Amino acid sequence: MAGVVEFKQHPSETLKAGNRFVLADVDPDSTPGYSGNKADGKALLADLDGKLGELQEKLFAESRFGGTKRILLILQAMDTAGKGGIVNHVMATMDPQGVQFKAFKAPTEEEKSYDFLWRIEKEVPAAGMVGVFDRSHYEDVLIHRVHSWATPEELKRRYVAINEFEERLTESGTKIVKVMLYISRDEQKARLLARLDNPAKHWKYSRGDLDERAFWDDYMAAYQAAIDVTNSDIAPWHVVPANKKWFARIAVQQLVLGAFSELKLEWPKADFDVAVEREIVERS
Amino acid sequence: MAGVVEFKQHPSETLKAGNRFVLADVDPDSTPGYSGNKADGKALLADLDGKLGELQEKLFAESRFGGTKRILLILQAMDTAGKGGIVNHVMATMDPQGVQFKAFKAPTEEEKSYDFLWRIEKEVPAAGMVGVFDRSHYEDVLIHRVHSWATPEELKRRYVAINEFEERLTESGTKIVKVMLYISRDEQKARLLARLDNPAKHWKYSRGDLDERAFWDDYMAAYQAAIDVTNSDIAPWHVVPANKKWFARIAVQQLVLGAFSELKLEWPKADFDVAVEREIVERS
Repeated sequence: MAGVVEFKQHPSETLKAGNRFVLADVDPDSTPGYSGNKADGKALLADLDGKLGELQEKLFAESRFGGTKRILLILQAMDTAGKGGIVNHVMATMDPQGVQFKAFKAPTEEEKSYDFLWRIEKEVPAAGMVGVFDRSHYEDVLIHRVHSWATPEELKRRYVAINEFEERLTESGTKIVKVMLYISRDEQKARLLARLDNPAKHWKYSRGDLDERAFWDDYMAAYQAAIDVTNSDIAPWHVVPANKKWFARIAVQQLVLGAFSELKLEWPKADFDVAVEREIVERS
Repeated sequence: MAGVVEFKQHPSETLKAGNRFVLADVDPDSTPGYSGNKADGKALLADLDGKLGELQEKLFAESRFGGTKRILLILQAMDTAGKGGIVNHVMATMDPQGVQFKAFKAPTEEEKSYDFLWRIEKEVPAAGMVGVFDRSHYEDVLIHRVHSWATPEELKRRYVAINEFEERLTESGTKIVKVMLYISRDEQKARLLARLDNPAKHWKYSRGDLDERAFWDDYMAAYQAAIDVTNSDIAPWHVVPANKKWFARIAVQQLVLGAFSELKLEWPKADFDVAVEREIVERS
């Protein structure tokens, strides 16, 4: 790690939504706890790839010997905030065999006919896996609140259900990492314009994104409300300043590394006599 | 690409099982069409990562505008041949959102109660996706043949069903890439011993692997038979010498790149007026 600029304060501390957390007080341009620049950030990200891969293999290995631990990273954000980049540049460095990735789009008619957690339950990570949710059950208290698709009473019911759901996941061995990628309204505009300026990105552009952009302040209020009531000790929210993509990536990488570290993973001990097996293989 | 050693002959030609293909004639130590060494191979692999990622995004983008193209990489091999390494070092460089990975283990009781293709159908790639099968429907004509779990008549029925299945996939837009990673019996022994010598790899060791190893020649005969009857123009087999892991990786990367290239992908054209949208975004 010689020459690599590391975090001075860990994002699990600096970015954690505290007791009286105010979203509007977060500066989306900031890089809390990190004094390096973009090049430093990229170097740090690359430097820790191997560590992340090894921890993921350990997690997977434990599950093969009865371990029930697993990780679930929940990513929420406004459009263009960089969820895809996190998936592609941070989580994709792990072995795909140990990662369960799920992007939740607008629910289908069938999904709508069930309780909102029905489609989520089906995608929670198996033992030994790292689950990644690109959007999640939080959409049901965000976009649904913004457009009043759910009554205040129903929203309240959902908040409670979410807390119970996450508690249950935790009890079954899941370490939950909740991340909101936080960009500014201006940064979103710049990123939408950049998409329009690059023909290779036109397919990502949709007028629909603008519709939601018009409700920016309502979304921020919905995030604030969701964070207020679903911020728990077992599954705290982390609000990651994301105007600088490179910072968001190293911050989320740190949060995931922190989750692995809390799991205190060990390589499973051999349940066989290595010398005996060596001989059998030699003779085979 | 300056300084990078490229293939002189493309693996889609050199490694394709021809009309009178004889598995035993393949040298698992060889590196057909490639004159570089391990370091050259690693450099080539890294050099083409970006290209693979761009092609995958194009494929995904097309599907968002009604495209039905997709790719299915089928990996078959004896234990320790390096299927996992291919997934981890070649396919994992693509965006996880565009890759559908599936490892087929021993079938469950439920899966056994259906036709052998039932569980396979459920995992075929959606439009725009790159599917990766770590083992596949070929297990049903390999291990089943080796252990006589299926009668010769049933095996014959399955070969026919496989050809029909792959034809149907092709008709619905799937480019199939079938790969057998080919290691020698001695190389497998060396890799099993290496696992035993590394405590971090003990979890991967299983006496069961040795059971199958004892049937080596029967497996080779089963592969030869499967290749003979399921080698088609639409879905030819490629036998990749895999004693050198680095070679197997660049060879499979080339095969996948070749499949992308056959699909002749284009960025979708904007179905909107860029200048108009720019103004709307500017005002938003």
